[in-house]
Amino acid sequence: MFAEARVGIRDPLRHGVACGSAQRRTPIAGNTSDGGRSVVSRALAVLGSFSKDRPEQTLGEIQQATGLASATAYRLANELVEWGALERISRGRYRVGIRLWQVGSLAPQARDLRDVALPFLQDLYEATHEVVHLVVMDEGKALYIERLMSRPEVQVQSRVARRLPLHAAGSGKVLLAYSPPELVEQVIAAGLPKQASRTITDSNVLRRELAGIRTTGYGVSRDEMTDGASSVAAPVRGADGEVIAAISVVLPSGSRDLQALVPAVSLAAAGISRGMRPFMMP
Amino acid sequence: MFAEARVGIRDPLRHGVACGSAQRRTPIAGNTSDGGRSVVSRALAVLGSFSKDRPEQTLGEIQQATGLASATAYRLANELVEWGALERISRGRYRVGIRLWQVGSLAPQARDLRDVALPFLQDLYEATHEVVHLVVMDEGKALYIERLMSRPEVQVQSRVARRLPLHAAGSGKVLLAYSPPELVEQVIAAGLPKQASRTITDSNVLRRELAGIRTTGYGVSRDEMTDGASSVAAPVRGADGEVIAAISVVLPSGSRDLQALVPAVSLAAAGISRGMRPFMMP
Repeated sequence: MFAEARVGIRDPLRHGVACGSAQRRTPIAGNTSDGGRSVVSRALAVLGSFSKDRPEQTLGEIQQATGLASATAYRLANELVEWGALERISRGRYRVGIRLWQVGSLAPQARDLRDVALPFLQDLYEATHEVVHLVVMDEGKALYIERLMSRPEVQVQSRVARRLPLHAAGSGKVLLAYSPPELVEQVIAAGLPKQASRTITDSNVLRRELAGIRTTGYGVSRDEMTDGASSVAAPVRGADGEVIAAISVVLPSGSRDLQALVPAVSLAAAGISRGMRPFMMP
Repeated sequence: MFAEARVGIRDPLRHGVACGSAQRRTPIAGNTSDGGRSVVSRALAVLGSFSKDRPEQTLGEIQQATGLASATAYRLANELVEWGALERISRGRYRVGIRLWQVGSLAPQARDLRDVALPFLQDLYEATHEVVHLVVMDEGKALYIERLMSRPEVQVQSRVARRLPLHAAGSGKVLLAYSPPELVEQVIAAGLPKQASRTITDSNVLRRELAGIRTTGYGVSRDEMTDGASSVAAPVRGADGEVIAAISVVLPSGSRDLQALVPAVSLAAAGISRGMRPFMMP
């Protein structure tokens, strides 16, 4: 439904469509016959059945999540283990292998963007000692690329490689503010679930909020994703001025004047944007 | 040749063998017939043809690297694009997709170890303002899991998800010092290539160096990986005391007394080791 929302580093929007990503989230559970699906798509379904909530799975769990026949799941898991995409651990459990992480680390969002951003994120962390995030949009969600934190006083729901809703966090709202209006309407149409006591659940309030972000160039949230947590976020831009990511500082609500953090967050975002330009040349 | 050297978080050594990883690095280039290889192994070969040096490839380059027939390479690349493992970009080029990074981020070295280590690495970075590394062993090489740095004065060859030789860096020597003797002999037998002016290339010197690391509990290098760069490294241990990773601080040679950094590096390594224990319970 949000497949069109994927924002790549060079080709936001258009890119996701070209990739045929609309087909990617086809539900596969419940399909117990393997007919009609290619071997590769079945193997990828096995990989895709692993998640933050299911980082380790038995063969039975893989089978259940993918709808594959038992013998097929077994054979595919073995082939994935052989290459190093999965690892077999004790008690018949499987987990994702380090080789997949290595190859995955070649994705430009994880490579170019993260490499350019990290020094600025560290400066921001050191200046604030709060939680610092680097976030991109992926399929209509905020995808966390990097998170710096010490032992935070604030409970954060972010986790690297995790996706969270766009309407409820400072960084998500910034990404949404600079998205095409169609995407904003898609997000609104899908519903604005309440995440915390002050989540914006009214579509008109959200539209006004996004317009405000476009005017001021930064976003602020208070108790919108998690009660007790506030954030200040700013957009990171690519070569032709399009927003490709957002950074944010998350801190305990009421602990500081959020406005006072805006210059630091904006400065770091501007530094990353400047750093991204060489990568963006055609 | 070093396939047995893979060190997992829970099952060092043994694990890699159980995974059949010995078959994983079979050279595939030059095999222009697709016969005898399963569809899944061919698709994984396509993924594996991407690297730090080749983060973007044309279909022709993929074909050349994998030895696949043109039509096969095209079909497999399309299936990988459809799922999001690859992305198609301009001028017929492909690159690794963010979805593969997301799934790869579930690997325990990238997830548990990195999550536990990051606060300690940040403290170490803040205390020293030098380059800070988290490194694990993978197939007889030092694999960089995390790197914190600002704008370093020292040229470093590390890069997240990059693998470097074990004998030439402080962190690599620490990993090697706590490896089984067979692995040390394998590394020596494979040759000790000179990386910089003071790389240890003599096997007896290396053996003495490793014994010294086991005695003192830390490793130091000076102009061994890169001229002008020195490092201090310490081991990170898992629940049953085995070394699962190393951390290091890299700084310009001659800029500081390396010995003075040992307590900070050792303290951070001890903190991470303590943090890893809950994950290690059977």
